[in-house]
Amino acid sequence: MHVGERFVSAPGKAILHGEHAVVHGKVALAVSLNLRTYLRLQGTASGQICIHLPNIDTFRAWDVAALQPLVSDRKGGTSLVERLRAFAGVAEGSTDSGNMAVLAFLYLYLSGFAGAQTLPSMSVRVWSELPTGAGLGSSAAYTVCLSAALLSSWHVLCFSWSEEELTLINKWAFQGEKIIHGNPSGVDNAVATWGGILRYHAGKITPLSRVPLLRILLTNTKVPRSTKLLVSGVKDKINKFPSIMVPVLESVDAVSRTCELTLREMATAGASAQQYDTLEELMDINQHHLSVMGVGHPALDTLCRLTLAHGLHSKLTGAGGGGCGITLLRPGNTTHPHHTPVLHTSSVRSAGISEHTSLSLNAALCDDISISLSLSLSLSLSTQC
Amino acid sequence: MHVGERFVSAPGKAILHGEHAVVHGKVALAVSLNLRTYLRLQGTASGQICIHLPNIDTFRAWDVAALQPLVSDRKGGTSLVERLRAFAGVAEGSTDSGNMAVLAFLYLYLSGFAGAQTLPSMSVRVWSELPTGAGLGSSAAYTVCLSAALLSSWHVLCFSWSEEELTLINKWAFQGEKIIHGNPSGVDNAVATWGGILRYHAGKITPLSRVPLLRILLTNTKVPRSTKLLVSGVKDKINKFPSIMVPVLESVDAVSRTCELTLREMATAGASAQQYDTLEELMDINQHHLSVMGVGHPALDTLCRLTLAHGLHSKLTGAGGGGCGITLLRPGNTTHPHHTPVLHTSSVRSAGISEHTSLSLNAALCDDISISLSLSLSLSLSTQC
Repeated sequence: MHVGERFVSAPGKAILHGEHAVVHGKVALAVSLNLRTYLRLQGTASGQICIHLPNIDTFRAWDVAALQPLVSDRKGGTSLVERLRAFAGVAEGSTDSGNMAVLAFLYLYLSGFAGAQTLPSMSVRVWSELPTGAGLGSSAAYTVCLSAALLSSWHVLCFSWSEEELTLINKWAFQGEKIIHGNPSGVDNAVATWGGILRYHAGKITPLSRVPLLRILLTNTKVPRSTKLLVSGVKDKINKFPSIMVPVLESVDAVSRTCELTLREMATAGASAQQYDTLEELMDINQHHLSVMGVGHPALDTLCRLTLAHGLHSKLTGAGGGGCGITLLRPGNTTHPHHTPVLHTSSVRSAGISEHTSLSLNAALCDDISISLSLSLSLSLSTQC
Repeated sequence: MHVGERFVSAPGKAILHGEHAVVHGKVALAVSLNLRTYLRLQGTASGQICIHLPNIDTFRAWDVAALQPLVSDRKGGTSLVERLRAFAGVAEGSTDSGNMAVLAFLYLYLSGFAGAQTLPSMSVRVWSELPTGAGLGSSAAYTVCLSAALLSSWHVLCFSWSEEELTLINKWAFQGEKIIHGNPSGVDNAVATWGGILRYHAGKITPLSRVPLLRILLTNTKVPRSTKLLVSGVKDKINKFPSIMVPVLESVDAVSRTCELTLREMATAGASAQQYDTLEELMDINQHHLSVMGVGHPALDTLCRLTLAHGLHSKLTGAGGGGCGITLLRPGNTTHPHHTPVLHTSSVRSAGISEHTSLSLNAALCDDISISLSLSLSLSLSTQC
């Protein structure tokens, strides 16, 4: 079979509130960023499949004929992932991002075309505005792009980005996330699929129907950390001081709920200065709570102090212990990326996965595509809502 | 009548945990400091009473004969405080520390000797190691010294510092505190009277029976603040975000209770490194909670950051918004007061009010006096327990 060309993109995410507390049954709010991952899939007649991941220096190619036998289990009782691991030479337990990305790609490719008579030749190239390992959902944006491109190239004529199809894309992207992360929450791929703001509570993901555009500075401290160790550290602290820590988790839960309520009001009645005051207070409170949980870091404290000196309020986002921080901008704030340790200015209310008809997109095209488009920074600040 | 000579001293206090939360019915722990206020009362035949308060540049003297008419109400319906205010020329609503100290002195003097046939002449000199207005209980140490010296000079032969007499001293000192502060909690005068560590909960003050010696650095940020405004700011925040703030107060309550339990264990079984770890964690947690309440200050953040860079953990003490911070020292820590913004190294487990027989005290005298003595820094660190 031959597949056409597909160009899709999906956004990264940040946690606005509720990181860590979410592990203990509390509400978290995840928001999509206007930093995106882009994927271009081109059908070829080369008899090969190629994957190019320039961000993580990963370039691999295989003969389609060599992959064909992997579709069905001929070794008895082995899973597709196990067979792919052996095929691609990826050791059990490897966490190398290149290896994980290759496994997820092969898994989604073979799963997607398992029903086809012959596997198609193709070249897939993925690049991203998202740093990897920074808690911004780069792997989910990747698997959502893969899932969307592979599924839509298979169902080439009937794919219309309906809710049902988005659910299918998200489901397969989650399988890819599982290969990469083992036990992900599913929030990242949901945000990458639907965009906007999602509420996550006790395993249930609910998109917020109306949300305002928020502008944030996203700062990558580039301090490496282990999410697993941070999560278990919080657990240890709760076990050591239950009477102290359980109320802190309750307070974080109330921060998420108050933020959700405030965002709804802002979307409905327009944003007021008082509502921005509230959002800032909530960020300050939660940053202190996260420090109480033991997931702060001097680099994050520095971010909070430096931004506060400019009247801006920040908190860590995601696992903490380094990683990224977010700083809320008010409508009137301008940013000077060269004067502060800021990585990106980002809109947290951006679209989910998008299909692009060409690379030369412009803002005027937005209105013609049901799921709105990835925009450049300046466009996103001036035109998205 | 003629009174003898009295030399008494009483300690200042710091709040270890529970400031602000105590206003909302939570547990607070107050500890006495080895920074003390000293009072020397000398009977004279001058026909005058003189008060010398060199720390606050206040020196006043009156003829005893002029004071005598104030004892009984001849103006009909006026309180002693009102008559004293008119006599000393202190306007209603004045908060000047010299004026307040003079009023409290005259009130306790006239109340103490109201039953005597003639008012005695005397000279009273008070000096202190405590800064005023820094939340360290300097006014309570002053009124406790006044109350103890005046009561004991009146009951010159029978005063034995029994529990009953200490209760009387504390009661009168509290009256003096009311004149100075309007509506004090009574914690400061209780700590100055009994020393040690007191638990304050819902208006009830309970001394901890056995407490360990703790060493702290006490840093005065010298940032002025209004306790009243800070207290009402916390109240406003609780009203604005009840679901967020009520759990924070509960968590502070648990911090105080956990600290109390840890101190009891340290006093009973000896202090371990793990217990110091716990005390440090509790200080960090509470400092974040106090920041959430809105009573932090950049100067306090700087203190926390600078001390943490030396492995030491700090929090604000008292009203916050500036004022003093405390830094816990471990047994092995040495201090370099000239290299850090440290005011005093202080033992938080020091004695309550003390009667001194002479100025040339030494540690050997301690065992002979039922209520142990004010010791110099080096003595307190090496001999108290």
